[in-house]
Amino acid sequence: MCAQRTVTAAVVIIGNEILSGRTSDANLPYLAKALNAVGVRVMEARVVADDEVAIISAVNTCRAAYDHVFTTGGIGPTHDDITSAAIARAFGVAIVRDPRATDLLTRHYAAAELSEARLKMADIPEGAALVDNPVSAAPGFRIGNVWVLPGVPRILQAMVDGLVAGLKGGDPVLSRTISAFTTESSIAFALGEVQQQHPATEIGSYPFVRSGRFGTSLVVRSTDRDALDAAAAAVAGMLHSAGVEPLMEDGPAA
Amino acid sequence: MCAQRTVTAAVVIIGNEILSGRTSDANLPYLAKALNAVGVRVMEARVVADDEVAIISAVNTCRAAYDHVFTTGGIGPTHDDITSAAIARAFGVAIVRDPRATDLLTRHYAAAELSEARLKMADIPEGAALVDNPVSAAPGFRIGNVWVLPGVPRILQAMVDGLVAGLKGGDPVLSRTISAFTTESSIAFALGEVQQQHPATEIGSYPFVRSGRFGTSLVVRSTDRDALDAAAAAVAGMLHSAGVEPLMEDGPAA
Repeated sequence: MCAQRTVTAAVVIIGNEILSGRTSDANLPYLAKALNAVGVRVMEARVVADDEVAIISAVNTCRAAYDHVFTTGGIGPTHDDITSAAIARAFGVAIVRDPRATDLLTRHYAAAELSEARLKMADIPEGAALVDNPVSAAPGFRIGNVWVLPGVPRILQAMVDGLVAGLKGGDPVLSRTISAFTTESSIAFALGEVQQQHPATEIGSYPFVRSGRFGTSLVVRSTDRDALDAAAAAVAGMLHSAGVEPLMEDGPAA
Repeated sequence: MCAQRTVTAAVVIIGNEILSGRTSDANLPYLAKALNAVGVRVMEARVVADDEVAIISAVNTCRAAYDHVFTTGGIGPTHDDITSAAIARAFGVAIVRDPRATDLLTRHYAAAELSEARLKMADIPEGAALVDNPVSAAPGFRIGNVWVLPGVPRILQAMVDGLVAGLKGGDPVLSRTISAFTTESSIAFALGEVQQQHPATEIGSYPFVRSGRFGTSLVVRSTDRDALDAAAAAVAGMLHSAGVEPLMEDGPAA
């Protein structure tokens, strides 16, 4: 195994509707999986209000701490969409009507539909690169290590699918899930020993209820496939020893 | 309208499984709604890894900045459940086997079932108050202004339902949702004017697709019922003027 630097990211979710509970965020799980698949690991996420000070503070803290920052939300046409202006302030640059973005919107909308509100979506921090929006034209953008994306999941997902191909990641985190109909407590001690014996992996334990029965999913994660296989085998062996049948699952990266 | 201080909260979601995308968080929306109903407003949320430094940093920052902090996750019996120990460190106190919590577990489990792993759930920072768990006995706890709760949504919800009654909140944020089959861009300018004319309210705009038609939900929020009613009427009037039929919705707090 070659040691390789971990490429890290933070996700900053912007929107009062998430903090009020009106809307459940669906973008963090999507971003986390898509980024991990190319070797970029989400280390932290923050949810902040549609508030300039809060956005600037979160973005500036995170862009200093991680390789990439992905923001979601607040880049639409209405008065509560203040993300682009806040990002410009965070970087100390002007926000300008971008000719490339204007051109994209002009080609997407009929002339009569191209209102000033829509053109607001072409106002982007000076020096930013555009991020392609294959769904509804209005682009996202990247400035420094900050990627600014919309909050609507269908549009965000299409944009993420496009941009991840260009990211230089480290080794993706691989995972193996082993479930069993047993409680966490019954296996906690033996599981802790397996974790100690396999330090190149990280083993998480997640209780569940399925068809009225209590169970536990044990998720082994590692960037090293051999270490992963060895730890997964040890987890299965530990369950056998405890008199519990392991249910091997080939899940997606977890 | 009596001016009243806003009572604020942050939510700290602890768990690698949320940051990896394996699990979608369901606890923030539940906490946000339950807290708002008693006049406590969630201003920020953070998702951090099962990592002591990350937990301590998030909790210490948030407990200094907000009236309350609610953490979710990491208080179970397995080796990756490190929240209680991290909270003790954040407060600079010892973690001790709590006799009240031990008693709760002893009464819940048969003697043969009361393993050391289960008793780990009675290890709590010195000086903390217990938070009742009506589902599975193992308590949460409160220390200072930090409430430490489990990650399993069914258990968290029961515990939140119990604890909110004891919180002293400010005025709850009331809301009214007015939807219409129109795009955000078509009404963005007029909506911005309504927002300017109703500064005691906060108006959010959220696009949706329903039965294949594009629409926009306009959510008016305020702690002042009269201001809310006036702004909601103005939003409906603005839509009428734009030739769009407003669909009034009496939704839950949003």
